[in-house]
Amino acid sequence: MAGSCLKGRFLSVFDYKTEKYIVAKNKKVGVLYRVIQLSIIGYIIGWVFVSKKGYQETDEAIQSSVITKLKGVSVTNTSESGLLVWGPEDYVIPPQGEAVLFVVTNFLETPNQKLGYCAESPKVLDGHCRVDRDCDKGKMVVAGNGIMSGRCLRKDESSNGTCEIYGWCPIERKFKPQGPLLTNAENFTIYIKNFIQFPKFKFSKSNVLETTDDSYLKKCRYDEELHPYCPIFRLGDITQRARYNFQDMSTFGGSIGIMISWNCDLDKGYSHCHPQYYFTRLDISVSNTTIATGFNFRHTRYFKNATGESYRSLFKVYGVRFNIMVHGKAGMFSIIPTAINVASGLALMGAGAFFCDMVLLYLMKKGNSYRERKFEDCRSKKSTSEDNSVEDKKAAMEQENLTF
Amino acid sequence: MAGSCLKGRFLSVFDYKTEKYIVAKNKKVGVLYRVIQLSIIGYIIGWVFVSKKGYQETDEAIQSSVITKLKGVSVTNTSESGLLVWGPEDYVIPPQGEAVLFVVTNFLETPNQKLGYCAESPKVLDGHCRVDRDCDKGKMVVAGNGIMSGRCLRKDESSNGTCEIYGWCPIERKFKPQGPLLTNAENFTIYIKNFIQFPKFKFSKSNVLETTDDSYLKKCRYDEELHPYCPIFRLGDITQRARYNFQDMSTFGGSIGIMISWNCDLDKGYSHCHPQYYFTRLDISVSNTTIATGFNFRHTRYFKNATGESYRSLFKVYGVRFNIMVHGKAGMFSIIPTAINVASGLALMGAGAFFCDMVLLYLMKKGNSYRERKFEDCRSKKSTSEDNSVEDKKAAMEQENLTF
Amino acid sequence: MAGSCLKGRFLSVFDYKTEKYIVAKNKKVGVLYRVIQLSIIGYIIGWVFVSKKGYQETDEAIQSSVITKLKGVSVTNTSESGLLVWGPEDYVIPPQGEAVLFVVTNFLETPNQKLGYCAESPKVLDGHCRVDRDCDKGKMVVAGNGIMSGRCLRKDESSNGTCEIYGWCPIERKFKPQGPLLTNAENFTIYIKNFIQFPKFKFSKSNVLETTDDSYLKKCRYDEELHPYCPIFRLGDITQRARYNFQDMSTFGGSIGIMISWNCDLDKGYSHCHPQYYFTRLDISVSNTTIATGFNFRHTRYFKNATGESYRSLFKVYGVRFNIMVHGKAGMFSIIPTAINVASGLALMGAGAFFCDMVLLYLMKKGNSYRERKFEDCRSKKSTSEDNSVEDKKAAMEQENLTF
Repeated sequence: MAGSCLKGRFLSVFDYKTEKYIVAKNKKVGVLYRVIQLSIIGYIIGWVFVSKKGYQETDEAIQSSVITKLKGVSVTNTSESGLLVWGPEDYVIPPQGEAVLFVVTNFLETPNQKLGYCAESPKVLDGHCRVDRDCDKGKMVVAGNGIMSGRCLRKDESSNGTCEIYGWCPIERKFKPQGPLLTNAENFTIYIKNFIQFPKFKFSKSNVLETTDDSYLKKCRYDEELHPYCPIFRLGDITQRARYNFQDMSTFGGSIGIMISWNCDLDKGYSHCHPQYYFTRLDISVSNTTIATGFNFRHTRYFKNATGESYRSLFKVYGVRFNIMVHGKAGMFSIIPTAINVASGLALMGAGAFFCDMVLLYLMKKGNSYRERKFEDCRSKKSTSEDNSVEDKKAAMEQENLTF
Repeated sequence: MAGSCLKGRFLSVFDYKTEKYIVAKNKKVGVLYRVIQLSIIGYIIGWVFVSKKGYQETDEAIQSSVITKLKGVSVTNTSESGLLVWGPEDYVIPPQGEAVLFVVTNFLETPNQKLGYCAESPKVLDGHCRVDRDCDKGKMVVAGNGIMSGRCLRKDESSNGTCEIYGWCPIERKFKPQGPLLTNAENFTIYIKNFIQFPKFKFSKSNVLETTDDSYLKKCRYDEELHPYCPIFRLGDITQRARYNFQDMSTFGGSIGIMISWNCDLDKGYSHCHPQYYFTRLDISVSNTTIATGFNFRHTRYFKNATGESYRSLFKVYGVRFNIMVHGKAGMFSIIPTAINVASGLALMGAGAFFCDMVLLYLMKKGNSYRERKFEDCRSKKSTSEDNSVEDKKAAMEQENLTF
Repeated sequence: MAGSCLKGRFLSVFDYKTEKYIVAKNKKVGVLYRVIQLSIIGYIIGWVFVSKKGYQETDEAIQSSVITKLKGVSVTNTSESGLLVWGPEDYVIPPQGEAVLFVVTNFLETPNQKLGYCAESPKVLDGHCRVDRDCDKGKMVVAGNGIMSGRCLRKDESSNGTCEIYGWCPIERKFKPQGPLLTNAENFTIYIKNFIQFPKFKFSKSNVLETTDDSYLKKCRYDEELHPYCPIFRLGDITQRARYNFQDMSTFGGSIGIMISWNCDLDKGYSHCHPQYYFTRLDISVSNTTIATGFNFRHTRYFKNATGESYRSLFKVYGVRFNIMVHGKAGMFSIIPTAINVASGLALMGAGAFFCDMVLLYLMKKGNSYRERKFEDCRSKKSTSEDNSVEDKKAAMEQENLTF
C-alpha cells in the first residue's frame, strides 16, 4: 500500500494537504456539534458583531472644548448689601465661561472688613478661652480667622470667652441660610457650546446647529426631539432632570454634573453622531447618608479708602456648581478587531470539536471503537511498515495472481 | 492490520498525536492555499505588527498638567477708558496660567455704573413697551439688565420706548466692534509647559528642554526642526498654523484649540517620545454656516467711593480663547496582544484551509474522490474492524506463508 | 476497503466528523508537546486571567468631578504691604475650589501703580539705551512693561540707561525671594472631594466617607489604613510624600501633581473600589537639569481714588500649584475578551502542534516514516482506489477462502 506511495514521494510545496476525517455516524454527537457551531456563529454574529459592533476599532480619547454662557438677572435685598441687581457677570464664577462654573444662589456679605483686633468667632473651637493664658500671643488660631493677641475676651469674669485676634474685622457672622436669595436663579438659562474631536479618526463635530439663522440661538430651548442641536437649558430644568428641586439646592448649594455623551458610529457617517445630555447630582450619594452635601466658598473684593487704607468685602457664596463632563466613543470599521473576533469564533469551534471528541470517545458506548479509528497507532503501523517490503511483495504477488 | 494495534493499545499521555493529512496533488487548490497563507502572514506581519504595532499594549489615559505664561504688552486708547497699558496680568483671564485661557484683544468698558433707574437697552426685546402697563413693576426683564420699575420711557407719546429698570446704570451701550483695540496682540508669546504621565507604564516626560542654560527659554521660539523642546509660540503664528488670520479673529474673538499630541513608542525608549503641536479653530465649522463664531464675555471691577457707595466698571471683552488639549498614546510590547494577534492569524489560516477544502471537495472535478479519501466512513471501517480478528489471522497466515 | 465506503455515501449533516490522528509513540516530542500545552494553559490562566484579568472588559474613560477646599490662616509682614492676615479667600487662586489650584506662599506687592512715565526695568534687555535714538517713540518694549516715550534716562552722560516708558509706574522692583512669607502654609489643610463615574458600567462613587456624623470631616486626617475615606491632607505632608520639602518649594514656588487612582474590580462589588493617592512634583525632572522649576504669576487689584483716577496693586505671587488628576480603570467580566483570550490560547496550541510536527517529521531520526504515515498521498491512494474493485474482489475472495 505505502510502496507506491514511496515512488510519488516528492511533496511539492503546492500540493494541498487536507486533514483526514473520520465520519462517526453518531447522531447525538453530530447534533451536539452542530448546536455548538450554531451557538458560536450566533454569538459572533449576533452579540459580537451586531450588538457590540466588534468589527469596529474604537476611540474613547475624546478631545473636547466647552464654552458656557449664562443669561438672566436677579435682585436681592439684604440688610448688609442693600438692594442688589445680579447679572451673569456677578453670579457666574469664574465669569469667562468655563466647563466648571458656579452660579451664586445665596450669599452672605461681610462688608467693610479692616485689619485690626476683634474677638474670634465662637464657632472656632481653638479660639475658646477662660483666661488670657489660653491665648498664646502670636499663635495662629487653628481653623480660625487670625493670629492671637494674647487677650481673652469675656463678657464677665465667670463666663467663657474667645481669644482676641488680629485679622479682618468684623469676623463673618454666624449664618444659617433660610432660603435662597437669588430666588429666580432657576429661570436663568445656560448655553453650553461643545466642540469635540476624535483624534484617531480625525473626526470633529459641535453640538450647535449649523444654521445661518442668527436668531435661532436667541429663541430656541433644548428639546431632544425638536431641537437636539440647541444646547440652551433652563437651570430649573437641569436640576429637575437630575431629579432634584432647584429650590432645595439653592439654599445650601449643590453640585450638578452635566454629561454630554457622544456615541458615534462613524461607519454611518457624520449625521449619525449626536450629543446626548445626562444630568446627575454629584454631592448626594445614593444612600443619602453623606455629610458632604452643599457647596459654598468665600471670595473677597478689595477697596482702598481716601487715605490708602485697605478694606474689603468678604462674600460667602452658596450656589450650584455645574461640572460639564464630556464622554465620547467613536467606532469605525477596522480589519484588526474583525479578524480577531472572527478568529476567536473559529478557535472556539475547534474547542467545540475537541469537546465533542471527548464526548464521542469517552461517553459514547462505542467510544472504544471510535478511539481506535481516530488514533491510528503509529507503532503498529511502523511494525507493518517495517514489513513493508514483505507486504509490498505480497501485494504485488497477489495482484499478479489476480491479473494472471 | 489493526490487530497489532490493539496490542499496543495503552496510549500513554506522552504519546504525541498528530493529525493525519491527505495530500491532494491539486496544484490549483495548492496555489490558492499558499496565496491565502501568504496573505494572512503578510497581513499579520505587515499590517498588524509593523504598521499598527499590534504587539504593543497601549495606554491612552494620559495624565497631563499644563501651565501657560504669556508675555507682551499693548496700549489702547478709547474715549471711555483713556490711554491704557495692558500687561499679561490684565489681558490674560484667568491670570494664573491655566490650560484654558483667554487673551483680550478688544473690549468695551462701561465705567462708573451705579445701581439706579434707567431705560432698558433697546436690544432687549422683552424691554420694549408702548404704555406703562407693558412694564410690570417688579418683574425681571427676560435676557435684560434689571427689574422693571413700572414706567415706560418714550421720546414722545406716539413712539415706542423701553421700560425703565432698576439695575446698574448706565446700561452698556450698543457696540459693534470695528477692529481690535489691542492691535499688537498677535506679537504676544505664549509659553506652554506640559508635563505628561502614562500611569500604566509609569512613564513621564515634559515638553521643555532639559538644559542648565538659564537663558534658553528667554530667547528661543518653537521650531519643529531646530527647537522642538522650546514650547514658546507667537500668537499670530498659532492662528496662522490654524489657517486663520489673527486680525480677523481679534475683532469679534474666537476660539483656538492647541492640541499637544504625544505618540510614544516606549519600546524605543525615552528619547523616542516627542510632543507634536496641532492648531485648529474651534468656533468655525467646516461648512462655515455656523452662527456660533466669536467669543466674548463680561466681567466687572467693583469700587467704593468715599461715602461707601458701590460703583463698578463693566468690561465686555472680546478675544481669543486658547484651549490646550493634550492627547497621548503610549505603546509598549506586551505578550497578550501579541498572542492574540498571532493566534488570530493562525485561526484565520484554519478558515483558509476550510475554504480550500470546500473548493477542493465541491468545485474540483475529482472532488468526489477527494471527499472519499478525506472522510473515512466509520461505519464501513467499523464493519471491517468487526472482522479484525479474521483479517488479523489472515494477515498472520499470509506472513507465515511468505516467511516459510 | 473504500468500496464498502461508497455504499454508505450519504453524509448526513448530523454525522459527526472528527480528525484522524496518527499516534507517534515518540516520548521526546510527546513531552515537548505536553510542555508547550501546559505553558500555554499556564500563561492563559495564570498571566492572562488571574494576573491581568483578561476576562474583563475595561473602562478607562473615567468621568470625574473634583472640589477642593483649603483651611488655615497666615500672617505676613512686609515693608510694601504691612501686616497682612491671609485666609483661604486670599491665598487660594482661584477661590472657587477647582481641581487646579494655587496656594500663595510668597509674594511681592507693588502698591499704588498709576499710568504714567518712568524708567523701564533694567532687567528688560530691549529697554537698555545709550541715547534717545535707541528709544523709538511709540514702540513697545519687547518683554517689557510699556510703550517708549522716546527719552533715554541715564544717571550721567557716560553711563548706559533705560528707556523711559509710559506704563504702570512705579515698575515692579527686582525681587529675589529669600524665603517664603507665608511661613506656616505647610500647615494648611486641603480637602479634596472627588466624585467619579464609569459611564460604560454605570458605576459611580465618591472618595468621602458616607456617614451621618457631622463632625467626622472636621476632625479626621487622611490615613491609608485608618481613614482611607477622609480626603483631608496637610500641605506639608503632601510635599513630603512627593519627596520634597515644603519650605524649599515655597520660596520660588512649585507644582505638585496629586493623582487619585481608582482601580476598580467591579466583579467584586462596590466596596472593592478604593481611591489611592499619589503625589509627584511636576516642575522638576528626574535628571534635575531643567530650568523650568518654580511657579509664579502676577495679578492685580484695581482701585479708584476720589477723583475717579485708577490705580492698582500689582502682586507677583509665588506658590505651590496643585494639579489634581484623576485616573481610573474599571473592569467587569465580559464574554468577548474572555472568548478572545481563550481562543488565542487554543490557536496557539495549534501552533504548538505544528511546531511539534516539524520537530517530529524533520528532526527525529524516523521522521521519514512518520511523514509517510501523516501525509497520505492521494495520488497513490487514488491509484489504489482505482484498483478498488480489484482489491475489494481480492479481499472478498480471501475472506471466502477463509470462511470456506
